[in-house]
Amino acid sequence: ARIVTLPGDGIGPEVTAAAVAVLNAVAAHYEHAFAVEEHPIGGIAIDTTGEPLPATTLAACQSADAVLLGAVGGPKWSDPAAKVRPEQGLLALRAALGVYANLRPLSVHPALAALSPLKDEKLKDVDVLFVRELTGGAYFGTKTRSADAATDECRYTVAEIERVARRAFALARGRRKHVTSVDKANVLETSRLWRATVMRVAADYPDVTLEHQLVDSMAMLLLTQPARYDVVVTENLFGDILTDEAAALAGSLGLLPSASLGEGNCGLYEPIHGSAPDIAGQGLANPLGAILSAALLLRHSLGLEGEAQAVEAAVAQVVEHGPRTRDLGGTAGTDAVLQAVLTALE
Amino acid sequence: ARIVTLPGDGIGPEVTAAAVAVLNAVAAHYEHAFAVEEHPIGGIAIDTTGEPLPATTLAACQSADAVLLGAVGGPKWSDPAAKVRPEQGLLALRAALGVYANLRPLSVHPALAALSPLKDEKLKDVDVLFVRELTGGAYFGTKTRSADAATDECRYTVAEIERVARRAFALARGRRKHVTSVDKANVLETSRLWRATVMRVAADYPDVTLEHQLVDSMAMLLLTQPARYDVVVTENLFGDILTDEAAALAGSLGLLPSASLGEGNCGLYEPIHGSAPDIAGQGLANPLGAILSAALLLRHSLGLEGEAQAVEAAVAQVVEHGPRTRDLGGTAGTDAVLQAVLTALE
Ligand SMILES: CC(C)[C@H](C(=O)O)[C@@H](O)C(=O)O
Ligand SMILES: CC(C)[C@H](C(=O)O)[C@@H](O)C(=O)O
Repeated sequence: ARIVTLPGDGIGPEVTAAAVAVLNAVAAHYEHAFAVEEHPIGGIAIDTTGEPLPATTLAACQSADAVLLGAVGGPKWSDPAAKVRPEQGLLALRAALGVYANLRPLSVHPALAALSPLKDEKLKDVDVLFVRELTGGAYFGTKTRSADAATDECRYTVAEIERVARRAFALARGRRKHVTSVDKANVLETSRLWRATVMRVAADYPDVTLEHQLVDSMAMLLLTQPARYDVVVTENLFGDILTDEAAALAGSLGLLPSASLGEGNCGLYEPIHGSAPDIAGQGLANPLGAILSAALLLRHSLGLEGEAQAVEAAVAQVVEHGPRTRDLGGTAGTDAVLQAVLTALE
Repeated sequence: ARIVTLPGDGIGPEVTAAAVAVLNAVAAHYEHAFAVEEHPIGGIAIDTTGEPLPATTLAACQSADAVLLGAVGGPKWSDPAAKVRPEQGLLALRAALGVYANLRPLSVHPALAALSPLKDEKLKDVDVLFVRELTGGAYFGTKTRSADAATDECRYTVAEIERVARRAFALARGRRKHVTSVDKANVLETSRLWRATVMRVAADYPDVTLEHQLVDSMAMLLLTQPARYDVVVTENLFGDILTDEAAALAGSLGLLPSASLGEGNCGLYEPIHGSAPDIAGQGLANPLGAILSAALLLRHSLGLEGEAQAVEAAVAQVVEHGPRTRDLGGTAGTDAVLQAVLTALE
């Protein structure tokens, strides 16, 4: 299998290196051959090539079996007047790979409940899979800017809504068979189309229960009744907001992974944390989000379910017994956590 | 002073009646003359006149000193194919009155901490004033719908951003002098205009500290560090989502008020809870959100700060000692709570 890594900016290189070490250990242990190839994206790519997504990087990703990304962005490239921004590289990559379904699983390890802002009793049995539409909406719509006004267009086609809804229902079948679709149908036209389309798709999955929630109510329900939700499907911008809100429940962003999938096997995998420039280069970053993203890569792009579970079990063991990085209340560095995962994997 | 009430749908009439009883008690006690006039809006207006905001209702609001609204909407009027929806009445009213700044104060009464999903230590010292832009953005932009696609345009002018930003800075001056502006400037053009404009306005308020947060980060920070925030200003849709998320911290939506202000004195006041059709007409609704909205009306539209504080103190006393409605963990009905507030006011 060919895997492209895009370490990117800030702590991206550190956590990506750790995830690659885990992939190499899996390859050795289960006798797979993974060819890993590294390319620049984001701020570092702007610095070296002038572009946030160089053509060679994109071409490599397009011919790979899977892409593992670290993080992009940082204060160095955040001038609001700048013409090129690191994030553009990530958005262009998502669009070019056609990875329209961003999966963000959320559960709260009991050993980390103390770190969560939520009360213990709320966290019990929380097991949500967010399916965020990733290649449409206001992220990719027409934008205008004049001296005295600006616009962003949110646009969705039936086809775009249908394919991500199907993915959500299919995933719900392998889980608790419940889908919550989130929109703002009392105000937005795109949301009314979203709701009508999701309802139509639901007819093909009679064994799965569908409910609708308005995005404002959902922002509240995620806190008051988080354990109620199974699969939550929503459009790009709502998904951006709700998944970050939900991530706060886990106590730290540091260990949350994501998988972005399209029609083919090639997926884009990235921890949901950012580039954390304040701790970059110091060996302090939590590598578990990247390592769990590598587990999702094994599962969804390489079809190696057993291997994915082995990595997840190793991470769970380290979360429980330590060592832990500072975001999880410990004092360990990136490498100590990586070594513990590798040991648990043996 | 002329006050128009718009009880609306569901529990709207019950909570509005309670708020009017409090206003009448204030009038009697402090020797003011309030002329209260009731008009239909929302679903009930659709049923009786065919329109969610009848012309007579709008005209009455436009010549009033203040408008007190209950709630609009309900399953009866929620058919996605319906041409007229109750919410349209509310949105049209906000636009017609020009109430571009929606103020939503949030604090957590210690007596209610047990009801909050957040841990006690997170709730300490939470005192946030949200200032949500209310008459622009995707709520009022051009919408299109064809057989296979839909669009919503989010549009902001410099003038729209500037006036709500000035309001936020002015309010911060009377508080802890800190403004957090929330946008998605790494993706949206309207957010980049938002950020640039807010930065320019900030120069006129050198005594107030300004920070920017991306909306996804803010959704997380509201849970992990809620006590850090003083005034939070943001655009319409982000404000809709973030204020509902924040409302969950208070333990119940039932006691949260809001004030929507424009350039004149005439403001629109409404509890942030919805029409709660499941308990409508049963005398179970919590009237405190409407009563606290009436307090904001006394403060912002009638300039009666002492009276506003008296109502707020009476409500705080009832929250602490009961009786409480079911959403606050009690068993009392609307009327028992109202009577307790009236007694505390004496
Ligand atoms: C970096 C940014 C463009 C991105 C997004 O908004 O999608 C990030 O917040 C995410 O959620 O992956
Ligand atoms: C009823 C609805 C249109 C409204 C909104 O989205 O503004 C409500 O959610 C609110 O926040 O006041």
